[in-house]
Amino acid sequence: MAEHTLRIFSGNAHPELAQEIATILNVPMGRSKTTIFPDSETHVTIDEVVRGQDIFIVQPCSTPVNEHLMELLLYLDAFRRASVHSVSVLMPYFPYARQDRMAKGREAISARVVVNLLETLGADRVVYMDIHNTAIQGFFNIPVDPLSAIPVLASYFKQERFKNYVIVSPDVGRADVAGKYAELTDLPLVVMHKRRTSAKETHTTHVVGDIRGKSPIIIDDLMASGSVMRQLDALYNAGAVGKAYFSVTHPVLLPSAIQYLNEDDRIEKLVVTNTIHIPPEKRVPKLEIVSIAPLMAKIIDRIYHGTSLSDLLVLT
Amino acid sequence: MAEHTLRIFSGNAHPELAQEIATILNVPMGRSKTTIFPDSETHVTIDEVVRGQDIFIVQPCSTPVNEHLMELLLYLDAFRRASVHSVSVLMPYFPYARQDRMAKGREAISARVVVNLLETLGADRVVYMDIHNTAIQGFFNIPVDPLSAIPVLASYFKQERFKNYVIVSPDVGRADVAGKYAELTDLPLVVMHKRRTSAKETHTTHVVGDIRGKSPIIIDDLMASGSVMRQLDALYNAGAVGKAYFSVTHPVLLPSAIQYLNEDDRIEKLVVTNTIHIPPEKRVPKLEIVSIAPLMAKIIDRIYHGTSLSDLLVLT
Amino acid sequence: MAEHTLRIFSGNAHPELAQEIATILNVPMGRSKTTIFPDSETHVTIDEVVRGQDIFIVQPCSTPVNEHLMELLLYLDAFRRASVHSVSVLMPYFPYARQDRMAKGREAISARVVVNLLETLGADRVVYMDIHNTAIQGFFNIPVDPLSAIPVLASYFKQERFKNYVIVSPDVGRADVAGKYAELTDLPLVVMHKRRTSAKETHTTHVVGDIRGKSPIIIDDLMASGSVMRQLDALYNAGAVGKAYFSVTHPVLLPSAIQYLNEDDRIEKLVVTNTIHIPPEKRVPKLEIVSIAPLMAKIIDRIYHGTSLSDLLVLT
Amino acid sequence: MAEHTLRIFSGNAHPELAQEIATILNVPMGRSKTTIFPDSETHVTIDEVVRGQDIFIVQPCSTPVNEHLMELLLYLDAFRRASVHSVSVLMPYFPYARQDRMAKGREAISARVVVNLLETLGADRVVYMDIHNTAIQGFFNIPVDPLSAIPVLASYFKQERFKNYVIVSPDVGRADVAGKYAELTDLPLVVMHKRRTSAKETHTTHVVGDIRGKSPIIIDDLMASGSVMRQLDALYNAGAVGKAYFSVTHPVLLPSAIQYLNEDDRIEKLVVTNTIHIPPEKRVPKLEIVSIAPLMAKIIDRIYHGTSLSDLLVLT
Amino acid sequence: MAEHTLRIFSGNAHPELAQEIATILNVPMGRSKTTIFPDSETHVTIDEVVRGQDIFIVQPCSTPVNEHLMELLLYLDAFRRASVHSVSVLMPYFPYARQDRMAKGREAISARVVVNLLETLGADRVVYMDIHNTAIQGFFNIPVDPLSAIPVLASYFKQERFKNYVIVSPDVGRADVAGKYAELTDLPLVVMHKRRTSAKETHTTHVVGDIRGKSPIIIDDLMASGSVMRQLDALYNAGAVGKAYFSVTHPVLLPSAIQYLNEDDRIEKLVVTNTIHIPPEKRVPKLEIVSIAPLMAKIIDRIYHGTSLSDLLVLT
Amino acid sequence: MAEHTLRIFSGNAHPELAQEIATILNVPMGRSKTTIFPDSETHVTIDEVVRGQDIFIVQPCSTPVNEHLMELLLYLDAFRRASVHSVSVLMPYFPYARQDRMAKGREAISARVVVNLLETLGADRVVYMDIHNTAIQGFFNIPVDPLSAIPVLASYFKQERFKNYVIVSPDVGRADVAGKYAELTDLPLVVMHKRRTSAKETHTTHVVGDIRGKSPIIIDDLMASGSVMRQLDALYNAGAVGKAYFSVTHPVLLPSAIQYLNEDDRIEKLVVTNTIHIPPEKRVPKLEIVSIAPLMAKIIDRIYHGTSLSDLLVLT
Repeated sequence: MAEHTLRIFSGNAHPELAQEIATILNVPMGRSKTTIFPDSETHVTIDEVVRGQDIFIVQPCSTPVNEHLMELLLYLDAFRRASVHSVSVLMPYFPYARQDRMAKGREAISARVVVNLLETLGADRVVYMDIHNTAIQGFFNIPVDPLSAIPVLASYFKQERFKNYVIVSPDVGRADVAGKYAELTDLPLVVMHKRRTSAKETHTTHVVGDIRGKSPIIIDDLMASGSVMRQLDALYNAGAVGKAYFSVTHPVLLPSAIQYLNEDDRIEKLVVTNTIHIPPEKRVPKLEIVSIAPLMAKIIDRIYHGTSLSDLLVLT
Repeated sequence: MAEHTLRIFSGNAHPELAQEIATILNVPMGRSKTTIFPDSETHVTIDEVVRGQDIFIVQPCSTPVNEHLMELLLYLDAFRRASVHSVSVLMPYFPYARQDRMAKGREAISARVVVNLLETLGADRVVYMDIHNTAIQGFFNIPVDPLSAIPVLASYFKQERFKNYVIVSPDVGRADVAGKYAELTDLPLVVMHKRRTSAKETHTTHVVGDIRGKSPIIIDDLMASGSVMRQLDALYNAGAVGKAYFSVTHPVLLPSAIQYLNEDDRIEKLVVTNTIHIPPEKRVPKLEIVSIAPLMAKIIDRIYHGTSLSDLLVLT
Repeated sequence: MAEHTLRIFSGNAHPELAQEIATILNVPMGRSKTTIFPDSETHVTIDEVVRGQDIFIVQPCSTPVNEHLMELLLYLDAFRRASVHSVSVLMPYFPYARQDRMAKGREAISARVVVNLLETLGADRVVYMDIHNTAIQGFFNIPVDPLSAIPVLASYFKQERFKNYVIVSPDVGRADVAGKYAELTDLPLVVMHKRRTSAKETHTTHVVGDIRGKSPIIIDDLMASGSVMRQLDALYNAGAVGKAYFSVTHPVLLPSAIQYLNEDDRIEKLVVTNTIHIPPEKRVPKLEIVSIAPLMAKIIDRIYHGTSLSDLLVLT
Repeated sequence: MAEHTLRIFSGNAHPELAQEIATILNVPMGRSKTTIFPDSETHVTIDEVVRGQDIFIVQPCSTPVNEHLMELLLYLDAFRRASVHSVSVLMPYFPYARQDRMAKGREAISARVVVNLLETLGADRVVYMDIHNTAIQGFFNIPVDPLSAIPVLASYFKQERFKNYVIVSPDVGRADVAGKYAELTDLPLVVMHKRRTSAKETHTTHVVGDIRGKSPIIIDDLMASGSVMRQLDALYNAGAVGKAYFSVTHPVLLPSAIQYLNEDDRIEKLVVTNTIHIPPEKRVPKLEIVSIAPLMAKIIDRIYHGTSLSDLLVLT
Repeated sequence: MAEHTLRIFSGNAHPELAQEIATILNVPMGRSKTTIFPDSETHVTIDEVVRGQDIFIVQPCSTPVNEHLMELLLYLDAFRRASVHSVSVLMPYFPYARQDRMAKGREAISARVVVNLLETLGADRVVYMDIHNTAIQGFFNIPVDPLSAIPVLASYFKQERFKNYVIVSPDVGRADVAGKYAELTDLPLVVMHKRRTSAKETHTTHVVGDIRGKSPIIIDDLMASGSVMRQLDALYNAGAVGKAYFSVTHPVLLPSAIQYLNEDDRIEKLVVTNTIHIPPEKRVPKLEIVSIAPLMAKIIDRIYHGTSLSDLLVLT
Repeated sequence: MAEHTLRIFSGNAHPELAQEIATILNVPMGRSKTTIFPDSETHVTIDEVVRGQDIFIVQPCSTPVNEHLMELLLYLDAFRRASVHSVSVLMPYFPYARQDRMAKGREAISARVVVNLLETLGADRVVYMDIHNTAIQGFFNIPVDPLSAIPVLASYFKQERFKNYVIVSPDVGRADVAGKYAELTDLPLVVMHKRRTSAKETHTTHVVGDIRGKSPIIIDDLMASGSVMRQLDALYNAGAVGKAYFSVTHPVLLPSAIQYLNEDDRIEKLVVTNTIHIPPEKRVPKLEIVSIAPLMAKIIDRIYHGTSLSDLLVLT
């Protein structure tokens, strides 16, 4: 029987990332084609022999999420029916990660739905990055590799010029991630705490910890609407000084986020990675992009060759 | 333990059909809410107690197909986690039905993917209408009710004024459905046959059967781009006379279809059903719409009460 | 770990086909034994080491269907428990293919039952030929290779002496297969249409298309009772001349079929393949047999070596 | 939703037993039809509404085993697709029970194959009687009711006129069943032991225990070829006197068994039950038949009404 | 078919809680028996008819965890084989909850293993309380009811005499739970942050937020070794005054915890619930126990009657 | 892709056996660590790269059974998540083997529960030795290798000095195993039969077969409490002479067994194997231990290299 060779394919979600990874690994991109029919149905074909091969498909399911997810599921079906040896799904951006539990009862646990769909269609392994809740690993029965961009992002701030900064968690739920940043950068920690005031139905934001005379680096796993940038007032009211930085892994970046970023002079930079395709109109001057392709390439290489991944995983 | 009561819910795909059915059954619509987040993720909640109840959710997965399908899957998850007794999915328009086999190798069998997703998320039963290939029943392990609008549509043509008409199958693959129409309307049958000419790479359309001096009723399961309307030339060249009718169950009706319909004076009417939501801009004068809500209501009533469905199914 | 080597085994259904394939591939037959106990239970043993090997078992489930199917299932269990690497099932004749949907309600979808049984017992891949409905592919979750004997059979008729022939579909449901024959042979198409006459409960057969002055080649996927041969009257009444040919893939050939074939002088030949074992008493002079063993051997070779199959599959 | 009502159906294996049970329960037989097509495929239809009902289907899979088994599987598929509430399978004779382990390596465990098939097709519960190995219960994940005819058969022998008899196990593997008979009849136990003689490759039969001056009642779970009757010589050589009785639950009774029974004057009676259909030609004078229908009827009644079964089960 | 009646059973883990719940619901305890054989195997029997009933089994899997878990799994098997209608597992203390992800690579996700075992053995629903990570819900495919004792515990502190207290999260990972306490009690929040000092390999504890002149209420989901009590120094060093309270849901309470509690005069009380059996030797004067039986009873009543649970769930 | 290399790991149950096997195979032990937390939860880690490797884990689940079983399940989860190629479980002592059926109704079939747990967690193959009932093979869907120590143990007795001995089955259920011993040793067979006396509720033990003037070798699959040693009286009352031997595969050996062994002068030796760890305090002078490590090593070697196992299995 033929050797299992390594093949890299890409869906429509982020072909430039796939290409960047393939270039690093010195492997040609697998040939496949996705057609969106005029009635909005998706159709996929694989344009080369894949029987018995080890497939890695790059598809971070960013906007439009459901289109990218369904495209991925159809590829999984096509690969399995074409008798591949294995399919590893590289989703540096895992969709629906914030819907990881029922928040109010009688809801879907959408992140688990995604996992069930991937497993049903025959994914053999999933690689993702900085998911909202580390316990999502346990949603899977198949192996997962939980990567993190935090070491890369933290190293950005581990310079002399940030010595007067503090790491800020935008809410109590992110305190553990902020703690990890704080440890890696050797900077103090501050936690914001939004709470409902007992009497009236409004929320107030408390700043837990001491930010007086310091500048903030607010961290998060993703930035969508950018509403976190509206929380700067509370920090400056609590005594923060100087320019603020934001550091997030996934640049979802809805239009409002770009607008806040451009307009608020207190913000110096928003540092992100390229887990998600960033179109030109979002590449504003204050946006700083760090590539995760080298990390992804390393992971693929080690998965394929069966060597240890542990030093690449940030596992709590 | 409480009685299993009947509840009808609707996703975003076709609420007016759900409401029409609920009105016939004299049952209030179940309360639920679908939110599309700005980053394109879908979120669903069920806003009433459903534990132990028999749920019927109406969601014909028309354009945008993947959005409607994912919304449905999330509802299935939410219903199951909310401990319903059963969920029947009413998809008069079943998506991806034409991708029912590998046409060229190394493709997905997308219709089966849809079935796997529905079964994985816990659908107990599926009701659909006039699916492209009757064998899709066998894609399911759970019970399915394959309904047909053909008797309703055929009865439209069973009038004296159509006595000079013939039933036309637009290609050899539809010949069996056309045969059924022919039998129900007691009209002759003609089959069109597109084939590649051996020498050159073009297709020619043969008209098998005698249409001289007759007018055509061209039938099909769905109309999307409306390219079938371009085949009228072949029929008139073969001797057809008078005005043409089209009769299809699912009015996908892309803009080009509406344009052909409006512009070709040889066409008298396009007769369709409301398995799919038809927005105002498509409700042109030549479009004739027959409602399937009474049929759907009857099916729900019988499923719920455990009485026989067979006379409602057109099973070949 | 040892190499996965290729092994060919056969059940009781068609050992001569298995042997013919093995001879082409220059591989010795795998040693196994099926015993039918006096109380009619089947017992199977594998008489050589198969751990870690790639097994191909040849078992077209012809009459007695249930015996051959159960024998196959027992072999699958024995192979899995003996730790083979994979089992590909070669069933050029797939049983129960005509029971691919509920025709009247409250029936089994027996073709899907067969698929469920094969998947439950651990088949890794199934190869079949000219199945009644191409969508049966979607009954499987495991890879399937849908082969066709139509190119081989059609080439038989692509000769000068058949230039005055037409391809005849025996009913509307076979029109698409007949269309494919018509295209490959470059001959015209005629479709027979049996329909119930509105008034009385009898069926009449319409001939759609022009057969005047032409001779018929009636095609079908299989011939069992041979009742299709009784339809010749309708063709000759519609103006057919000369001698008729029949061309079918699977020679089920019940005694009545052999009788019709022998007795009707209008029939020149019945052209079939050897997907099914043909006992001597059925090998009458008018029967022409084309072997599919070379095609099966090619498929096995390519599956085993992981090269492309697409040119061997007649998809669509 | 409608009440779950009790319905009794029968396959082709033993309709008279089904009817006998239905009569006791005062329930009309469910209407269904099995057709064996001329090409040997089986086709089943259910001829009444069964949605939401509790089905009991009687099908002891005796000769031809594979035909009866496949018929049963098709009924299970038809019932599930017709949306019954539950299906209990009554197989007083469970097929392939003696193939309950690999005896020589690289075999099927055919009894487990049967269980996998039943579970895959959706059986909810299985009732069987006196299976070869009580641990076959553990082959199932679904509930099973292991009945025994031993109390009924033993009571036949618990009379004064049998006071000079001993219970004989025909081999060491049946010693535990024989022990149960011995306890119920209060008679002594003797065990036959066939063993290979070390030097030569022949078997000799040892009689373990004292049969001198006693008459034998040889017990077993089933009688097929009747070769056990050839073992009488060893018993009489060991000192047995008088006439012998045989007592077995399942009367498989191949022709040789009937012949031995008729011809050997040392045999007084063969006592059996009607778990299997016994055709007229096997109903010879020495055959004594005890009906299990009352026991089966009681079981159905209790399963349906949810009352205790334990006193009807002979466990361990 | 009989009504599904409600039955409450208990394993060995916490029979007094089961009895307390049964008393509130005015239902007799189900009769069952667990035997631990001398070779340490567990054996369970159910001593009454349970066919068709809705079973609730109380088994919080505290020490010895594996014994209690295996006992529960055996009961699930016994219940399913005895044909119950449903089994709801009440595990107010869910075991292995802290092993909810791979912390270092190449570990089990033990909490998911527990879920897989419960689902494999046929649990229909699980009820637990204050699990370490709310996303563990998504480990399940079956419905779960995540209860919380926080409202009950928080109400203990919502009194005038606690107005000078602050809520203390013992580490960054508990900050969100502490935030919820803070909101419910209307007290300020302080977060402790243990971090590795860059230079040396020791950990230091930072106190984020202002505790000067305030007294601490340190909260957590469970207390095992009680090492959290050693963190008081850091709080008092940061300016805390007065007596400390601890509030935790699950009183695992290893001997060291009892010792710290008794010996440290700065601690006023440890407030816990009875999710776990608390033996007499742990019922020291400083331990305050709040019963969750009324909450559990309410949940059972509502699950059984199909009324809304949402007000009882604290879902974030 | 890397070669699948062979790795041997051990849980806590019997590390010395694992080491003995590894030494024979000349393979270093795999590095892993099991921690029992003070709250009794088990935690496992694998301390080397195992991706793509063929793992053999040695864990005979002796006392404490549930601890060893859960440890094994956690290892299976860890191995699968670490992407091994396969895991073979070597459990020479399979736990819960005597709970292989419902003995009284409404019990678990605990041996099947164990199988379900192993299969759910992803075991690929199980090797065990002398299980109570050979049909337990059929509890598995995955391959199993049923080994036996009987040939090794029997060869111990195949010496001139045992020519006056008889093989004794301690009850009717063990008669088949005893028969196999008898055949291998060429000694006569005697069967003990405990039965309830009809009148009173006591049991008496009958000795079936002739032991007068002979000495007994009592055989069994395991010895736990040693109560079988109390049956010697019946044998000597029936005429046995000389010293007795016991021969059992699994030395569970509860304290009472050691006591009986030491105290009863009629017993010469108890011959056992080391399927289970035997602590020093049980290694009394009358205990004779035969190692199964060479047999286990041979099995691993052949599984790994894909050569035949059949001569090592004692089937039937």
